Amino acid sequence: MMRIETLPERDLFGPGPCNVHPDVRAAMAAPTLGHLDPLFAQMMEEVKDMLRQVMGTRNAMTFPLSAPASLAMEASFVNLMEPGDTAIIGINGVFGGRMAEIIERLGGNVVRVESDWGKPVDASAMIQAMKDHSDARVVALVHAETSTGVLSDPAPICRAATDAGMLSVVDTVTGLVGCRVDVDTWGADVVYSGTQKCLAVPPGLAPISFSERALHRIRTRKVPVQSWFCDINLVMGYWSGDGARSYHHTAPVNAIYALHKGLSRVLGEGLDTARARHDAAHVTLKDGLAEMGLSLFVDEATRLPQLNVVSVPDGVDEAAVRAALLDAHNLEIGAGLGALAGKVWRIGLMGENARSERVELVLGALRAALTQHQATAA
Amino acid sequence: MMRIETLPERDLFGPGPCNVHPDVRAAMAAPTLGHLDPLFAQMMEEVKDMLRQVMGTRNAMTFPLSAPASLAMEASFVNLMEPGDTAIIGINGVFGGRMAEIIERLGGNVVRVESDWGKPVDASAMIQAMKDHSDARVVALVHAETSTGVLSDPAPICRAATDAGMLSVVDTVTGLVGCRVDVDTWGADVVYSGTQKCLAVPPGLAPISFSERALHRIRTRKVPVQSWFCDINLVMGYWSGDGARSYHHTAPVNAIYALHKGLSRVLGEGLDTARARHDAAHVTLKDGLAEMGLSLFVDEATRLPQLNVVSVPDGVDEAAVRAALLDAHNLEIGAGLGALAGKVWRIGLMGENARSERVELVLGALRAALTQHQATAA
Repeated sequence: MMRIETLPERDLFGPGPCNVHPDVRAAMAAPTLGHLDPLFAQMMEEVKDMLRQVMGTRNAMTFPLSAPASLAMEASFVNLMEPGDTAIIGINGVFGGRMAEIIERLGGNVVRVESDWGKPVDASAMIQAMKDHSDARVVALVHAETSTGVLSDPAPICRAATDAGMLSVVDTVTGLVGCRVDVDTWGADVVYSGTQKCLAVPPGLAPISFSERALHRIRTRKVPVQSWFCDINLVMGYWSGDGARSYHHTAPVNAIYALHKGLSRVLGEGLDTARARHDAAHVTLKDGLAEMGLSLFVDEATRLPQLNVVSVPDGVDEAAVRAALLDAHNLEIGAGLGALAGKVWRIGLMGENARSERVELVLGALRAALTQHQATAA
Repeated sequence: MMRIETLPERDLFGPGPCNVHPDVRAAMAAPTLGHLDPLFAQMMEEVKDMLRQVMGTRNAMTFPLSAPASLAMEASFVNLMEPGDTAIIGINGVFGGRMAEIIERLGGNVVRVESDWGKPVDASAMIQAMKDHSDARVVALVHAETSTGVLSDPAPICRAATDAGMLSVVDTVTGLVGCRVDVDTWGADVVYSGTQKCLAVPPGLAPISFSERALHRIRTRKVPVQSWFCDINLVMGYWSGDGARSYHHTAPVNAIYALHKGLSRVLGEGLDTARARHDAAHVTLKDGLAEMGLSLFVDEATRLPQLNVVSVPDGVDEAAVRAALLDAHNLEIGAGLGALAGKVWRIGLMGENARSERVELVLGALRAALTQHQATAA
């Protein structure tokens, strides 16, 4: 069997991963240290410190979970909830729906507060649900819905949850760096993200932050956390950094090198500058798409700059266009997900790709692929 | 805050991670592909094919779980067991004990078949337990106990489990490549490993293989798998490769590049050659330790060549010796774990380090550190 020996460098304009800066890739290739090495422990502390800055929090337990963000979603609920507990979930896309599925598997009850796909989570409906279900333990929503490209505001929902004595969970997998993330100002109790979106680090880790209220809940729960791997009571011993670091699992050392470098780059640029760059790239894309007669699926007020959901024009075979972009232009854009499969493309402008010259690249390739497609279809 | 910019290259003779070949690190630093890219899908198929060869199996569902091996342990039980099911666990160290803890958290019952630390799992006691608990669903053991350096033979236990209508789970995190692993000959139903031991790949992924019997059980279970992330019914859609690959989570693309390269290297060398190299390195180490008056904790017949557990001589501060090795020699050996903490060192000769010149390096450093330590203590 012939095996792949070399890989092309694609331009990654899908919903993540995005292109990774060579410095971050080089950092990932540094010699592996032991996962209990004092030098690696220092690196863990630096990663925690930088994550706190990027996530806008003073939460001590802010660290990268050693797994993709999907497991961070699960870890949030498996730690906060006990069997029979109720969670109120804002659902406006695939990832809110996934939250509900995870909770049901854990033996929890779900109150679904649904919005149309393409619309934000409805804060007033969430607050009403907290009144109607005052025994609920957890309130959760997705900040930046990767399936629809919609931004929702966690702040009023998290504050209301705190007032109601509930704990709030916010998914900002796609939001971090591209949008303002301010865990402490939101008053959120558990917030998680991924590395492969606007942090522009390879996929595999999930930054996550727990408030003191969340940790108190986890320390005082009656039933042990169902998942040994995700039990923050155990993970804390490995990541807490106060005194002896106790073995839990073996951290993915080289992946953490990459995150360390990616965080250094983002903080070196400055969060405001990085966010402005994502905003500007979005405007360039939006204008270019409009010139091509393409429209965005989401209203301007709640659009994510870093993930643009484009309606596929009538009569266009969306998969053929994506394949042509990949084959002829070495460029990836994303397909629709869930209810939007076949109906939209998702164009990510994340991290290194949130620059005008990169936007021109994707616009040019899309224009050429559509022209070619229409010529073939004619 | 000053941040770490460069990292030293340590010699890693602990229980893993071990030193990673520069080619594997370079592979990890290749440009990131989209996780649904057809080229990445081809790489996933190649990884599956190579894992089947290395693990000695024709199991279709043989793939790397996107998380450390600790989660693969959890995934094994969360998929095979439903609440109230019973598992018979061979316990002769930390990792067998961890299996029991995971199962209890999942709502399962555990029958513990304990052996002294340093001794193998007792096959006849396991078989007796299957007779005494004929309603048990699962039988599990650790092939190569990383906490004690002991090899146990899974074959008779797995065969008896099959005969009893039970499913067998084997942990070969430390065993793979350093010892003979032959999933199909064993007749094991779920076998998992890690990348950072004798595969000599950075930590972060967990190769895992499911028999058709295991998959049948998972497909026909009554209660959904408690963990969405670990539910093999869902993971299969992403990794199965027959027809449309459906999104589940975002695979750690660059980590899989490293595994692909590491597997290519092992198969290029040949499994028999690699194993013989681990055996020979062990003999060199054993002889050198004997010359220094140091003794191994485990009987010769059941010793792991790749993980040597050395009794700490009376009066020696084992932590001081390890610190001296790290500081003066840039070399890591492992501490004792669990009941053996403070009593032993664990010297790994894994992957790239299972070579006589590497063994001489660790012997020389240990000799120097002990001499220095005794001079200071005198």
